[in-house]
Amino acid sequence: MLFQVEMDVRIPIGFDEKTLDELKATEKARAQELQRQGKWRHLWRVVGQYRNTSVFDVESAAELHELLTGLPLFPFMEIKVTALCRHPSSIHDDDR
Amino acid sequence: MLFQVEMDVRIPIGFDEKTLDELKATEKARAQELQRQGKWRHLWRVVGQYRNTSVFDVESAAELHELLTGLPLFPFMEIKVTALCRHPSSIHDDDR
Amino acid sequence: MLFQVEMDVRIPIGFDEKTLDELKATEKARAQELQRQGKWRHLWRVVGQYRNTSVFDVESAAELHELLTGLPLFPFMEIKVTALCRHPSSIHDDDR
Amino acid sequence: MLFQVEMDVRIPIGFDEKTLDELKATEKARAQELQRQGKWRHLWRVVGQYRNTSVFDVESAAELHELLTGLPLFPFMEIKVTALCRHPSSIHDDDR
Amino acid sequence: MLFQVEMDVRIPIGFDEKTLDELKATEKARAQELQRQGKWRHLWRVVGQYRNTSVFDVESAAELHELLTGLPLFPFMEIKVTALCRHPSSIHDDDR
Amino acid sequence: MLFQVEMDVRIPIGFDEKTLDELKATEKARAQELQRQGKWRHLWRVVGQYRNTSVFDVESAAELHELLTGLPLFPFMEIKVTALCRHPSSIHDDDR
Amino acid sequence: MLFQVEMDVRIPIGFDEKTLDELKATEKARAQELQRQGKWRHLWRVVGQYRNTSVFDVESAAELHELLTGLPLFPFMEIKVTALCRHPSSIHDDDR
Amino acid sequence: MLFQVEMDVRIPIGFDEKTLDELKATEKARAQELQRQGKWRHLWRVVGQYRNTSVFDVESAAELHELLTGLPLFPFMEIKVTALCRHPSSIHDDDR
Amino acid sequence: MLFQVEMDVRIPIGFDEKTLDELKATEKARAQELQRQGKWRHLWRVVGQYRNTSVFDVESAAELHELLTGLPLFPFMEIKVTALCRHPSSIHDDDR
Amino acid sequence: MLFQVEMDVRIPIGFDEKTLDELKATEKARAQELQRQGKWRHLWRVVGQYRNTSVFDVESAAELHELLTGLPLFPFMEIKVTALCRHPSSIHDDDR
Repeated sequence: MLFQVEMDVRIPIGFDEKTLDELKATEKARAQELQRQGKWRHLWRVVGQYRNTSVFDVESAAELHELLTGLPLFPFMEIKVTALCRHPSSIHDDDR
Repeated sequence: MLFQVEMDVRIPIGFDEKTLDELKATEKARAQELQRQGKWRHLWRVVGQYRNTSVFDVESAAELHELLTGLPLFPFMEIKVTALCRHPSSIHDDDR
Repeated sequence: MLFQVEMDVRIPIGFDEKTLDELKATEKARAQELQRQGKWRHLWRVVGQYRNTSVFDVESAAELHELLTGLPLFPFMEIKVTALCRHPSSIHDDDR
Repeated sequence: MLFQVEMDVRIPIGFDEKTLDELKATEKARAQELQRQGKWRHLWRVVGQYRNTSVFDVESAAELHELLTGLPLFPFMEIKVTALCRHPSSIHDDDR
Repeated sequence: MLFQVEMDVRIPIGFDEKTLDELKATEKARAQELQRQGKWRHLWRVVGQYRNTSVFDVESAAELHELLTGLPLFPFMEIKVTALCRHPSSIHDDDR
Repeated sequence: MLFQVEMDVRIPIGFDEKTLDELKATEKARAQELQRQGKWRHLWRVVGQYRNTSVFDVESAAELHELLTGLPLFPFMEIKVTALCRHPSSIHDDDR
Repeated sequence: MLFQVEMDVRIPIGFDEKTLDELKATEKARAQELQRQGKWRHLWRVVGQYRNTSVFDVESAAELHELLTGLPLFPFMEIKVTALCRHPSSIHDDDR
Repeated sequence: MLFQVEMDVRIPIGFDEKTLDELKATEKARAQELQRQGKWRHLWRVVGQYRNTSVFDVESAAELHELLTGLPLFPFMEIKVTALCRHPSSIHDDDR
Repeated sequence: MLFQVEMDVRIPIGFDEKTLDELKATEKARAQELQRQGKWRHLWRVVGQYRNTSVFDVESAAELHELLTGLPLFPFMEIKVTALCRHPSSIHDDDR
Repeated sequence: MLFQVEMDVRIPIGFDEKTLDELKATEKARAQELQRQGKWRHLWRVVGQYRNTSVFDVESAAELHELLTGLPLFPFMEIKVTALCRHPSSIHDDDR
């Protein structure tokens, strides 16, 4: 199952920098682990924003919920989830 | 250069069906040609909508403009373009 | 897989009433068939609107897309789809 | 009387975790009590959000107001209430 | 049961004036009948708009739905419904 | 002169409860005083919200401004004011 | 009584030009008559739009409603009305 | 050059009252000075809001920017600026 | 005086193509004439849209209004105008 | 590659003024350095706002992302990025 996920990160002004750096490092490690597992299939940076646009490939909506809410930066995120399916004009094997 | 492109197609009620079918067939052929050329890199259907979310990989913004405005269904589309770049946490070779 | 689906029906002023009545009858038959199959699990009317809020239970996002775009009134609808999953506090067997 | 209720929970960054855990536990207990009483008829999690979509079945609007404003997490919630009624195409006994 | 109902009437430019006059006359008669029955409890004009703000007092949400969708001008209306209940500071007997 | 006034109260998380209770008590007393004077003609609670919808009957816009900005909870409110007038279909003596 | 009124005129593409010219001439005559009567106190054009921002000085909200809905171009307008009163820092005699 | 300027003042809950009173006094003095200079040509209070709607008459956009950003309450304001010009139907000498 | 102007062109489906081509040709000629006069100082295409973002340099707001409303495609445009002035950090001679 | 970039700066009330002054000085130096390099091609102030509208000319979207997120005031900014290309009616050499 494919989902487009857009994550917009909002760090309050004055948030402790050291804590933030640790959160970001943990977030990066977790993001790469999920990519290696094939669950976080695409991850792009939106230009000029602390924001990404991603595609997840998961077993179920429940699994996606668990993955997203388990991200270290989840409490700082505005998240938008959009269910995707194969487009009839697509010729790409991995767009399903 | 990567761009996320979201196309929302709005057909007026009562639009001639035969003309629409021809437009859709031409659109599909063009979309597949652009995919084979590697320019329309991803194409997904948004569930429950006459809408897609796509990723284009083009030489320039001008090329993207020419590709999008040349689509047979362009006059019926609301289009949103978002510039993307590589995410520092991405491990996927083609997410750039 | 559960999805909340909100359908807002917009009939243009002056649309042929007989055609509309036929579309509505077909829509009703199809809606009831999908309910009997267990795919359209809940269907409520939003008070004061030509609008419903529904819950679908489908095998995949692709199946949901096929069901929704196949509805006779689909060309007249604004549709919003929200992926759901079981709530940790839910005690209802069918809320999953 | 049926109402669709959407609750979006917003916890300020830095809110005391222990207090929050206690609030969540009380909230869960109360939610389950209301479900057992048949007043909170459906409760689903919206994927990727600290948000639910629910259906309440109450004696009156006043009762719903009392239930919602009495929830332990109410001060943290954005709530949207929509009055529902039976859909003429519904065949489900409990969608009324 | 009390509901605040806001009705915004949108007549397409060029709509037949004679038909519109008849619709308005029927609408007025129906509105006054519902007021005499005590169901349409308040009815005010919003200044500078073809729009009203109203309060209905009905037996059920289903009755409100039937009343609103049965109005002669319903197909031309954008309607917003808000469930009300007695305010703890209210001293007015009929604000319940 | 009639005005529809919608007041949405937003208390910051962590605001001192004792101070808030005092503010609420003063607010209630003032609201009832204005109702007895006939200036705050209707006052309803919006279900599931710390929000009311009201109708004021005042001598002038300036008087309304003075009344609203003098409310103890005014600094916590988002307020929306809409000018009303008698609806030509209204039969209620007090809807003017 | 002072009201800020913003009028946004939307003429459908293809609307008969001769009829429109007549409507505009009648609108201009009426606007100037109301200005001479002191009721339409200010009238400015918003740059780059078929839109004005105005200040009306009327006896009552009902009078304003009658004036606005009686304008020849009223059926083509989106209108926004805002009640004004004297600002405590104003030194202008006519800003009341 | 005429500009419509709308200023919406937002004071954070808990802001020091003495400092605020001083800011307001300075703001008032400055507003009256600019009115006497003919630059702040109109100033009205929006009913029920800590908000004004104004008309400025300045030599240049740069002068307007300097005036607005120099206001003592500027850091607390949401400001909307709209360029105006003479309306062809206006008969008022000062609406230009 | 500098103004940022964003023009969004909306052609109704089915609008006569020959008339549109003539309008576009006249629009282009006029746009280039205004550029040569130094009044339309910048003109860029927004990628993937029938939309431009421009900077005008005019004697007055009234002149800008005359230029914009005189454009052949004006009846098809949504226009947004923003007053600009020199930025204190700018080093470009023509950004004023 | 051209991008329109709009930066809206939001400083929290009470933020340390000395730190802010230093940030602004560094921001100004950096902005001027980027202008001298030809990357920040245009920079205008939006009248009445702590906001600018700019045009960047960069090698890639990645370079733009690096420039914007490296600005000293980036944590305080809401940024909107729009990809531009040459307009077919443009006669300006540098609008590409």
